[in-house]
Amino acid sequence: MTNSTLKTMLQHRSIRKFTPQEIDEQTLDLILKAACNGSTMGNMQLYSIIVTKDKEKMKEMAPFHFNQPIATNAPVILTFVADFNRFNKYCEYRDAETNAYSNLQSYHWAVIDAIIAAQNACVAAESLGLGICWLGTITFNADKFIEALKLPKHTLPVACIAVGYPDETPDLTDKLPLEALVHYETYNDYTKESIDWLFAEKESHENTKKLLEENNLPNLARIFTERRYKKADNEHFAKVLVEALRGQGFISD
Amino acid sequence: MTNSTLKTMLQHRSIRKFTPQEIDEQTLDLILKAACNGSTMGNMQLYSIIVTKDKEKMKEMAPFHFNQPIATNAPVILTFVADFNRFNKYCEYRDAETNAYSNLQSYHWAVIDAIIAAQNACVAAESLGLGICWLGTITFNADKFIEALKLPKHTLPVACIAVGYPDETPDLTDKLPLEALVHYETYNDYTKESIDWLFAEKESHENTKKLLEENNLPNLARIFTERRYKKADNEHFAKVLVEALRGQGFISD
Repeated sequence: MTNSTLKTMLQHRSIRKFTPQEIDEQTLDLILKAACNGSTMGNMQLYSIIVTKDKEKMKEMAPFHFNQPIATNAPVILTFVADFNRFNKYCEYRDAETNAYSNLQSYHWAVIDAIIAAQNACVAAESLGLGICWLGTITFNADKFIEALKLPKHTLPVACIAVGYPDETPDLTDKLPLEALVHYETYNDYTKESIDWLFAEKESHENTKKLLEENNLPNLARIFTERRYKKADNEHFAKVLVEALRGQGFISD
Repeated sequence: MTNSTLKTMLQHRSIRKFTPQEIDEQTLDLILKAACNGSTMGNMQLYSIIVTKDKEKMKEMAPFHFNQPIATNAPVILTFVADFNRFNKYCEYRDAETNAYSNLQSYHWAVIDAIIAAQNACVAAESLGLGICWLGTITFNADKFIEALKLPKHTLPVACIAVGYPDETPDLTDKLPLEALVHYETYNDYTKESIDWLFAEKESHENTKKLLEENNLPNLARIFTERRYKKADNEHFAKVLVEALRGQGFISD
Protein backbone atom coordinates (compact mmCIF):
# COMPACT_ATOMS: atom_id res chain seq x y z
CA MET A 1 0.00 0.00 0.00
CA THR A 2 2.92 2.31 0.63
CA ASN A 3 4.53 4.20 -2.28
CA SER A 4 7.78 6.06 -2.95
CA THR A 5 6.42 9.39 -1.66
CA LEU A 6 5.35 7.83 1.63
CA LYS A 7 8.68 6.02 1.86
CA THR A 8 10.49 9.33 1.45
CA MET A 9 8.38 10.92 4.16
CA LEU A 10 8.55 8.00 6.58
CA GLN A 11 12.33 7.80 6.12
CA HIS A 12 12.84 11.49 6.87
CA ARG A 13 15.69 12.38 9.22
CA SER A 14 17.59 15.65 9.52
CA ILE A 15 20.93 15.61 7.72
CA ARG A 16 23.66 17.80 9.24
CA LYS A 17 26.66 16.60 7.25
CA PHE A 18 26.88 17.07 3.49
CA THR A 19 29.28 15.96 0.75
CA PRO A 20 31.00 18.78 -1.18
CA GLN A 21 28.74 18.07 -4.19
CA GLU A 22 26.96 21.19 -5.43
CA ILE A 23 23.23 21.19 -6.26
CA ASP A 24 22.85 21.80 -9.99
CA GLU A 25 20.49 24.45 -11.38
CA GLN A 26 17.96 21.96 -12.72
CA THR A 27 17.64 20.16 -9.39
CA LEU A 28 17.30 23.39 -7.41
CA ASP A 29 14.73 24.59 -9.90
CA LEU A 30 12.59 21.47 -9.37
CA ILE A 31 12.73 21.96 -5.60
CA LEU A 32 11.71 25.61 -5.93
CA LYS A 33 8.89 24.75 -8.34
CA ALA A 34 7.51 22.14 -5.92
CA ALA A 35 7.82 24.66 -3.08
CA CYS A 36 5.80 27.23 -5.03
CA ASN A 37 3.02 24.85 -6.06
CA GLY A 38 1.52 24.15 -2.64
CA SER A 39 -1.78 25.43 -1.29
CA THR A 40 -1.84 29.14 -0.47
CA MET A 41 -4.37 31.52 1.08
CA GLY A 42 -6.68 32.78 -1.68
CA ASN A 43 -3.92 31.95 -4.21
CA MET A 44 -2.02 35.04 -3.00
CA GLN A 45 1.30 33.13 -2.59
CA LEU A 46 2.31 35.04 0.54
CA TYR A 47 5.95 33.93 0.69
CA SER A 48 9.34 34.54 -0.81
CA ILE A 49 12.32 32.22 -0.91
CA ILE A 50 15.85 33.56 -0.48
CA VAL A 51 18.51 31.26 -1.93
CA THR A 52 21.88 31.55 -0.18
CA LYS A 53 24.87 30.00 -1.96
CA ASP A 54 27.47 32.67 -1.21
CA LYS A 55 29.73 31.40 1.59
CA GLU A 56 30.44 34.97 2.73
CA LYS A 57 26.71 35.55 3.21
CA MET A 58 26.45 32.28 5.13
CA LYS A 59 29.33 33.35 7.40
CA GLU A 60 27.72 36.75 7.96
CA MET A 61 24.50 35.05 9.15
CA ALA A 62 26.17 32.20 11.07
CA PRO A 63 26.22 34.03 14.44
CA PHE A 64 22.45 34.61 14.21
CA HIS A 65 22.15 30.83 13.72
CA PHE A 66 24.24 30.48 16.91
CA ASN A 67 27.17 29.25 14.79
CA GLN A 68 25.73 25.83 14.02
CA PRO A 69 28.24 24.23 11.59
CA ILE A 70 25.41 23.50 9.16
CA ALA A 71 24.74 27.23 8.72
CA THR A 72 27.98 27.47 6.72
CA ASN A 73 28.63 23.87 5.59
CA ALA A 74 25.57 23.33 3.39
CA PRO A 75 25.90 24.05 -0.34
CA VAL A 76 22.52 25.81 -0.35
CA ILE A 77 20.41 27.44 2.34
CA LEU A 78 16.80 28.32 1.60
CA THR A 79 15.19 30.96 3.80
CA PHE A 80 11.40 31.13 3.59
CA VAL A 81 9.90 34.51 4.26
CA ALA A 82 6.30 35.26 5.22
CA ASP A 83 5.71 37.95 2.58
CA PHE A 84 2.83 40.40 2.24
CA ASN A 85 5.13 43.02 0.68
CA ARG A 86 4.72 41.74 -2.88
CA PHE A 87 0.93 41.58 -2.62
CA ASN A 88 0.75 44.99 -0.93
CA LYS A 89 2.91 46.46 -3.71
CA TYR A 90 0.58 44.86 -6.24
CA CYS A 91 -2.36 46.55 -4.51
CA GLU A 92 -0.50 49.86 -4.44
CA TYR A 93 0.27 49.77 -8.17
CA ARG A 94 -3.34 48.89 -8.98
CA ASP A 95 -4.85 51.73 -6.93
CA ALA A 96 -6.37 49.33 -4.40
CA GLU A 97 -6.42 49.79 -0.60
CA THR A 98 -2.75 49.65 0.42
CA ASN A 99 -2.86 48.78 4.11
CA ALA A 100 -5.54 46.10 4.25
CA TYR A 101 -2.93 43.50 5.22
CA SER A 102 -0.87 45.29 7.88
CA ASN A 103 -2.12 43.23 10.79
CA LEU A 104 -1.47 40.01 12.69
CA GLN A 105 -4.19 38.07 10.85
CA SER A 106 -2.42 38.81 7.56
CA TYR A 107 0.90 37.76 9.10
CA HIS A 108 -0.73 34.52 10.25
CA TRP A 109 -1.74 33.69 6.67
CA ALA A 110 1.73 34.52 5.36
CA VAL A 111 3.49 32.31 7.94
CA ILE A 112 1.23 29.42 7.01
CA ASP A 113 1.88 29.96 3.28
CA ALA A 114 5.63 30.15 3.85
CA ILE A 115 5.75 26.93 5.89
CA ILE A 116 3.66 25.04 3.32
CA ALA A 117 6.20 26.11 0.69
CA ALA A 118 9.14 25.19 2.94
CA GLN A 119 7.82 21.71 3.70
CA ASN A 120 7.10 21.08 0.02
CA ALA A 121 10.73 22.04 -0.69
CA CYS A 122 11.91 19.53 1.92
CA VAL A 123 9.88 16.63 0.55
CA ALA A 124 10.90 17.51 -3.02
CA ALA A 125 14.59 17.65 -2.06
CA GLU A 126 14.43 14.35 -0.18
CA SER A 127 12.65 12.67 -3.10
CA LEU A 128 15.68 13.66 -5.23
CA GLY A 129 18.15 12.04 -2.82
CA LEU A 130 19.14 15.24 -1.06
CA GLY A 131 19.21 15.70 2.70
CA ILE A 132 17.69 18.62 4.56
CA CYS A 133 17.80 20.17 8.01
CA TRP A 134 15.60 22.93 9.40
CA LEU A 135 17.46 25.70 11.20
CA GLY A 136 14.92 26.62 13.88
CA THR A 137 17.30 29.41 14.82
CA ILE A 138 15.68 31.56 12.12
CA THR A 139 12.81 32.11 14.58
CA PHE A 140 15.10 33.70 17.18
CA ASN A 141 16.85 36.75 15.78
CA ALA A 142 14.34 37.92 13.16
CA ASP A 143 15.73 41.46 13.33
CA LYS A 144 19.26 40.32 12.38
CA PHE A 145 18.07 38.20 9.44
CA ILE A 146 15.84 41.03 8.23
CA GLU A 147 18.92 43.22 8.01
CA ALA A 148 21.23 40.60 6.47
CA LEU A 149 18.71 39.56 3.81
CA LYS A 150 17.49 43.16 3.22
CA LEU A 151 13.89 42.18 3.93
CA PRO A 152 11.39 45.02 3.44
CA LYS A 153 8.36 45.93 5.56
CA HIS A 154 5.55 43.34 5.58
CA THR A 155 7.94 40.39 5.46
CA LEU A 156 9.43 38.18 8.18
CA PRO A 157 11.75 35.15 7.88
CA VAL A 158 10.10 32.04 9.34
CA ALA A 159 11.87 28.95 8.00
CA CYS A 160 15.41 28.13 7.03
CA ILE A 161 16.42 24.86 5.35
CA ALA A 162 19.94 23.63 4.74
CA VAL A 163 20.04 21.40 1.64
CA GLY A 164 22.81 19.16 0.29
CA TYR A 165 23.87 15.61 -0.58
CA PRO A 166 23.96 13.52 2.63
CA ASP A 167 27.31 12.48 4.01
CA GLU A 168 25.76 10.58 6.93
CA THR A 169 22.81 8.25 7.60
CA PRO A 170 21.71 8.97 11.14
CA ASP A 171 19.15 6.78 12.87
CA LEU A 172 15.52 7.81 12.55
CA THR A 173 14.58 10.17 15.38
CA ASP A 174 12.46 8.81 18.21
CA LYS A 175 8.91 10.12 17.84
CA LEU A 176 5.86 10.01 20.06
CA PRO A 177 3.37 7.27 19.13
CA LEU A 178 0.48 8.33 16.90
CA GLU A 179 -1.89 7.97 19.86
CA ALA A 180 -0.11 10.91 21.51
CA LEU A 181 -0.74 13.22 18.57
CA VAL A 182 -4.09 12.26 17.09
CA HIS A 183 -7.50 12.96 18.64
CA TYR A 184 -10.92 11.92 17.35
CA GLU A 185 -13.75 14.49 17.13
CA THR A 186 -12.60 16.49 20.17
CA TYR A 187 -9.31 17.02 22.00
CA ASN A 188 -8.60 14.30 24.52
CA ASP A 189 -6.56 16.11 27.18
CA TYR A 190 -3.60 14.46 28.89
CA THR A 191 -3.50 13.10 32.43
CA LYS A 192 -0.39 12.13 34.38
CA GLU A 193 -1.12 8.51 33.47
CA SER A 194 -1.44 9.18 29.74
CA ILE A 195 1.71 11.36 29.73
CA ASP A 196 3.61 8.54 31.47
CA TRP A 197 2.42 6.02 28.94
CA LEU A 198 2.79 8.17 25.81
CA PHE A 199 6.31 9.37 26.68
CA ALA A 200 7.53 5.97 27.98
CA GLU A 201 9.27 4.88 24.78
CA LYS A 202 10.93 8.27 24.30
CA GLU A 203 12.09 8.36 27.92
CA SER A 204 13.63 4.90 27.75
CA HIS A 205 15.36 5.61 24.41
CA GLU A 206 19.16 5.23 24.37
CA ASN A 207 19.57 8.84 23.18
CA THR A 208 17.57 10.11 26.13
CA LYS A 209 19.62 8.10 28.62
CA LYS A 210 22.82 9.50 27.11
CA LEU A 211 21.46 13.06 27.30
CA LEU A 212 20.50 12.69 30.95
CA GLU A 213 23.97 11.46 31.84
CA GLU A 214 25.69 14.25 29.91
CA ASN A 215 23.49 16.90 31.51
CA ASN A 216 23.29 15.32 34.96
CA LEU A 217 19.55 15.87 35.03
CA PRO A 218 16.80 13.43 36.06
CA ASN A 219 14.50 13.70 33.02
CA LEU A 220 14.08 14.96 29.48
CA ALA A 221 11.62 17.72 30.40
CA ARG A 222 14.29 19.41 32.52
CA ILE A 223 16.82 19.22 29.69
CA PHE A 224 14.41 21.39 27.71
CA THR A 225 13.47 23.81 30.47
CA GLU A 226 16.95 24.10 32.06
CA ARG A 227 19.31 23.69 29.09
CA ARG A 228 17.78 23.97 25.63
CA TYR A 229 14.91 26.46 25.69
CA LYS A 230 14.84 28.28 29.00
CA LYS A 231 11.96 30.48 30.12
CA ALA A 232 13.99 33.70 30.28
CA ASP A 233 15.45 33.09 26.80
CA ASN A 234 12.05 32.27 25.32
CA GLU A 235 10.54 35.40 26.82
CA HIS A 236 13.45 37.46 25.52
CA PHE A 237 13.05 36.09 21.99
CA ALA A 238 9.26 36.54 22.19
CA LYS A 239 9.98 40.24 22.73
CA VAL A 240 12.38 40.29 19.77
CA LEU A 241 9.65 38.65 17.66
CA VAL A 242 6.97 41.13 18.72
CA GLU A 243 9.32 44.05 18.03
CA ALA A 244 10.16 42.60 14.60
CA LEU A 245 6.43 42.16 13.84
CA ARG A 246 5.89 45.78 14.88
CA GLY A 247 8.89 47.03 12.89
CA GLN A 248 7.75 45.11 9.81
CA GLY A 249 4.26 46.61 10.01
CA PHE A 250 2.24 43.59 11.16
CA ILE A 251 1.44 45.08 14.60
CA SER A 252 0.43 48.71 14.70
CA ASP A 253 -0.51 49.48 18.32
CA MET B 1 14.72 13.81 -13.76
CA THR B 2 11.27 14.20 -12.27
CA ASN B 3 9.82 11.43 -10.09
CA SER B 4 6.42 10.40 -8.75
CA THR B 5 6.70 12.60 -5.64
CA LEU B 6 7.48 15.68 -7.72
CA LYS B 7 4.68 14.76 -10.13
CA THR B 8 2.25 14.61 -7.20
CA MET B 9 3.41 18.01 -5.95
CA LEU B 10 3.47 19.69 -9.36
CA GLN B 11 -0.02 18.32 -10.14
CA HIS B 12 -1.49 19.65 -6.91
CA ARG B 13 -4.83 21.40 -7.15
CA SER B 14 -7.46 21.90 -4.46
CA ILE B 15 -10.33 19.42 -4.67
CA ARG B 16 -13.71 20.65 -3.44
CA LYS B 17 -15.95 17.81 -4.68
CA PHE B 18 -15.56 14.30 -3.35
CA THR B 19 -17.10 10.90 -4.19
CA PRO B 20 -19.03 9.23 -1.34
CA GLN B 21 -16.14 6.74 -0.87
CA GLU B 22 -14.93 6.60 2.73
CA ILE B 23 -11.23 6.68 3.62
CA ASP B 24 -10.32 3.33 5.17
CA GLU B 25 -8.42 3.08 8.47
CA GLN B 26 -5.18 1.91 6.90
CA THR B 27 -5.08 4.80 4.43
CA LEU B 28 -5.87 7.39 7.09
CA ASP B 29 -3.23 5.85 9.31
CA LEU B 30 -0.56 6.24 6.60
CA ILE B 31 -1.50 9.90 6.12
CA LEU B 32 -1.31 10.53 9.87
CA LYS B 33 2.03 8.74 10.16
CA ALA B 34 3.51 10.83 7.35
CA ALA B 35 2.10 13.97 9.00
CA CYS B 36 3.79 13.09 12.27
CA ASN B 37 7.19 12.28 10.78
CA GLY B 38 8.15 15.75 9.56
CA SER B 39 10.75 18.05 11.07
CA THR B 40 9.80 19.58 14.40
CA MET B 41 11.38 22.13 16.74
CA GLY B 42 13.81 20.28 19.04
CA ASN B 43 11.82 17.07 18.37
CA MET B 44 9.09 18.40 20.67
CA GLN B 45 6.27 17.63 18.15
CA LEU B 46 4.29 20.75 19.01
CA TYR B 47 1.05 19.83 17.24
CA SER B 48 -2.05 17.75 17.58
CA ILE B 49 -4.35 16.49 14.84
CA ILE B 50 -8.10 16.35 15.36
CA VAL B 51 -9.85 13.90 13.03
CA THR B 52 -13.46 14.84 12.27
CA LYS B 53 -15.63 12.15 10.67
CA ASP B 54 -18.87 12.78 12.55
CA LYS B 55 -21.24 14.68 10.23
CA GLU B 56 -22.97 16.29 13.22
CA LYS B 57 -19.62 17.74 14.36
CA MET B 58 -18.97 19.00 10.82
CA LYS B 59 -22.38 20.69 10.77
CA GLU B 60 -21.75 22.28 14.16
CA MET B 61 -18.50 23.82 12.84
CA ALA B 62 -19.79 24.71 9.35
CA PRO B 63 -20.88 28.26 10.26
CA PHE B 64 -17.35 29.03 11.58
CA HIS B 65 -16.11 27.88 8.14
CA PHE B 66 -18.61 30.36 6.66
CA ASN B 67 -20.73 27.42 5.45
CA GLN B 68 -18.43 26.33 2.64
CA PRO B 69 -20.01 23.10 1.26
CA ILE B 70 -16.69 21.31 1.68
CA ALA B 71 -16.84 21.80 5.46
CA THR B 72 -19.62 19.19 5.58
CA ASN B 73 -19.20 17.24 2.31
CA ALA B 74 -15.74 15.75 2.89
CA PRO B 75 -15.54 12.26 4.42
CA VAL B 76 -12.71 13.40 6.72
CA ILE B 77 -11.57 16.77 8.00
CA LEU B 78 -8.19 17.06 9.69
CA THR B 79 -7.66 20.06 11.96
CA PHE B 80 -4.05 20.77 12.88
CA VAL B 81 -3.52 22.43 16.20
CA ALA B 82 -0.42 24.33 17.35
CA ASP B 83 -0.01 22.49 20.64
CA PHE B 84 2.24 23.32 23.59
CA ASN B 85 -0.27 21.82 26.05
CA ARG B 86 1.06 18.28 25.78
CA PHE B 87 4.68 19.37 26.26
CA ASN B 88 3.75 21.69 29.12
CA LYS B 89 1.85 18.84 30.81
CA TYR B 90 4.93 16.65 30.33
CA CYS B 91 7.04 19.33 32.05
CA GLU B 92 4.47 19.62 34.84
CA TYR B 93 4.43 15.87 35.54
CA ARG B 94 8.24 15.77 35.55
CA ASP B 95 8.66 18.63 38.03
CA ALA B 96 10.19 20.91 35.42
CA GLU B 97 9.43 24.64 34.94
CA THR B 98 5.76 24.73 33.86
CA ASN B 99 5.39 28.09 32.17
CA ALA B 100 8.55 28.31 30.07
CA TYR B 101 6.48 28.12 26.88
CA SER B 102 3.60 30.51 27.56
CA ASN B 103 4.73 33.18 25.11
CA LEU B 104 4.50 34.19 21.47
CA GLN B 105 7.90 32.69 20.57
CA SER B 106 6.64 29.30 21.75
CA TYR B 107 3.43 29.79 19.77
CA HIS B 108 5.52 30.61 16.69
CA TRP B 109 7.33 27.27 16.97
CA ALA B 110 4.07 25.38 17.45
CA VAL B 111 2.43 26.99 14.40
CA ILE B 112 5.43 26.05 12.28
CA ASP B 113 5.38 22.45 13.58
CA ALA B 114 1.63 22.16 12.93
CA ILE B 115 1.89 23.44 9.36
CA ILE B 116 4.80 21.10 8.56
CA ALA B 117 2.61 18.21 9.76
CA ALA B 118 -0.40 19.49 7.79
CA GLN B 119 1.52 19.83 4.53
CA ASN B 120 3.03 16.37 4.96
CA ALA B 121 -0.52 15.03 5.38
CA CYS B 122 -1.55 16.76 2.14
CA VAL B 123 1.32 15.35 0.09
CA ALA B 124 0.80 11.89 1.60
CA ALA B 125 -2.94 11.98 0.83
CA GLU B 126 -2.37 13.14 -2.74
CA SER B 127 0.25 10.44 -3.30
CA LEU B 128 -2.47 7.91 -2.40
CA GLY B 129 -4.90 9.31 -4.98
CA LEU B 130 -6.90 11.39 -2.54
CA GLY B 131 -7.77 15.05 -3.03
CA ILE B 132 -7.35 17.75 -0.44
CA CYS B 133 -8.45 21.32 0.18
CA TRP B 134 -7.23 23.71 2.87
CA LEU B 135 -9.98 25.54 4.73
CA GLY B 136 -8.25 28.86 5.41
CA THR B 137 -11.35 29.77 7.40
CA ILE B 138 -9.81 27.99 10.41
CA THR B 139 -7.64 31.12 10.87
CA PHE B 140 -10.68 33.38 11.32
CA ASN B 141 -12.79 32.26 14.24
CA ALA B 142 -10.20 30.56 16.45
CA ASP B 143 -12.37 31.10 19.53
CA LYS B 144 -15.30 29.15 18.03
CA PHE B 145 -13.14 26.20 16.95
CA ILE B 146 -11.45 26.13 20.35
CA GLU B 147 -14.86 25.63 21.92
CA ALA B 148 -16.16 23.12 19.37
CA LEU B 149 -13.02 20.96 19.49
CA LYS B 150 -12.57 21.39 23.28
CA LEU B 151 -9.04 22.72 22.85
CA PRO B 152 -7.24 23.39 26.14
CA LYS B 153 -4.93 26.30 27.05
CA HIS B 154 -1.66 26.45 25.09
CA THR B 155 -3.23 25.20 21.88
CA LEU B 156 -4.65 27.00 18.84
CA PRO B 157 -6.11 25.56 15.60
CA VAL B 158 -4.07 26.74 12.57
CA ALA B 159 -4.80 24.44 9.64
CA CYS B 160 -7.81 22.52 8.43
CA ILE B 161 -7.72 20.04 5.56
CA ALA B 162 -10.69 18.39 3.88
CA VAL B 163 -9.70 14.98 2.49
CA GLY B 164 -11.56 12.61 0.19
CA TYR B 165 -11.59 10.84 -3.18
CA PRO B 166 -11.80 13.44 -5.97
CA ASP B 167 -15.02 13.78 -7.93
CA GLU B 168 -13.63 16.54 -10.15
CA THR B 169 -10.39 17.39 -11.99
CA PRO B 170 -10.16 21.17 -11.97
CA ASP B 171 -7.50 22.97 -14.03
CA LEU B 172 -4.23 23.71 -12.29
CA THR B 173 -4.39 27.10 -10.56
CA ASP B 174 -2.56 30.02 -12.17
CA LYS B 175 0.59 30.75 -10.15
CA LEU B 176 3.12 33.54 -10.22
CA PRO B 177 6.29 32.69 -12.15
CA LEU B 178 9.22 31.44 -10.08
CA GLU B 179 11.02 34.75 -10.71
CA ALA B 180 8.34 36.49 -8.64
CA LEU B 181 8.94 34.28 -5.62
CA VAL B 182 12.65 33.46 -5.53
CA HIS B 183 15.45 35.87 -4.61
CA TYR B 184 19.19 35.24 -4.66
CA GLU B 185 21.34 36.19 -1.64
CA THR B 186 19.22 39.22 -0.68
CA TYR B 187 15.62 40.29 -1.25
CA ASN B 188 15.11 42.00 -4.57
CA ASP B 189 12.25 44.41 -3.87
CA TYR B 190 9.48 45.02 -6.40
CA THR B 191 9.05 48.11 -8.58
CA LYS B 192 5.96 49.06 -10.55
CA GLU B 193 7.66 47.62 -13.64
CA SER B 194 8.49 44.28 -12.03
CA ILE B 195 4.99 43.97 -10.56
CA ASP B 196 3.51 44.65 -14.01
CA TRP B 197 5.71 41.99 -15.56
CA LEU B 198 5.42 39.37 -12.83
CA PHE B 199 1.62 39.61 -12.53
CA ALA B 200 1.01 39.89 -16.32
CA GLU B 201 0.18 36.23 -16.91
CA LYS B 202 -2.11 36.05 -13.87
CA GLU B 203 -3.89 39.25 -14.88
CA SER B 204 -4.52 38.04 -18.42
CA HIS B 205 -5.74 34.60 -17.24
CA GLU B 206 -9.27 33.61 -18.30
CA ASN B 207 -10.28 33.09 -14.64
CA THR B 208 -9.20 36.63 -13.77
CA LYS B 209 -11.15 38.12 -16.67
CA LYS B 210 -14.25 36.21 -15.57
CA LEU B 211 -13.83 37.41 -11.98
CA LEU B 212 -13.49 41.05 -13.03
CA GLU B 213 -16.70 40.84 -15.06
CA GLU B 214 -18.63 39.15 -12.25
CA ASN B 215 -17.43 41.73 -9.73
CA ASN B 216 -17.52 44.75 -12.02
CA LEU B 217 -14.07 45.80 -10.83
CA PRO B 218 -11.08 46.92 -12.91
CA ASN B 219 -8.39 44.62 -11.48
CA LEU B 220 -7.63 41.59 -9.33
CA ALA B 221 -6.09 43.60 -6.47
CA ARG B 222 -9.41 45.33 -5.87
CA ILE B 223 -11.27 42.01 -5.83
CA PHE B 224 -9.11 41.11 -2.85
CA THR B 225 -9.29 44.44 -1.03
CA GLU B 226 -12.96 45.19 -1.79
CA ARG B 227 -14.57 41.75 -1.90
CA ARG B 228 -12.54 38.88 -0.50
CA TYR B 229 -10.40 40.09 2.38
CA LYS B 230 -11.34 43.61 3.32
CA LYS B 231 -9.31 45.78 5.68
CA ALA B 232 -12.03 46.10 8.33
CA ASP B 233 -12.64 42.33 8.33
CA ASN B 234 -8.93 41.55 8.54
CA GLU B 235 -8.50 43.94 11.44
CA HIS B 236 -11.50 42.44 13.17
CA PHE B 237 -10.15 38.90 12.80
CA ALA B 238 -6.68 40.06 13.88
CA LYS B 239 -8.32 41.15 17.16
CA VAL B 240 -10.08 37.78 17.46
CA LEU B 241 -6.70 36.08 16.93
CA VAL B 242 -4.91 38.21 19.52
CA GLU B 243 -7.72 37.57 22.02
CA ALA B 244 -7.54 33.84 21.33
CA LEU B 245 -3.74 33.89 21.80
CA ARG B 246 -4.25 35.71 25.10
CA GLY B 247 -7.04 33.37 26.20
CA GLN B 248 -4.94 30.32 25.35
CA GLY B 249 -2.00 31.62 27.35
CA PHE B 250 0.43 32.59 24.57
CA ILE B 251 0.22 36.34 25.30
CA SER B 252 0.28 37.41 28.91
CA ASP B 253 0.38 41.23 28.91
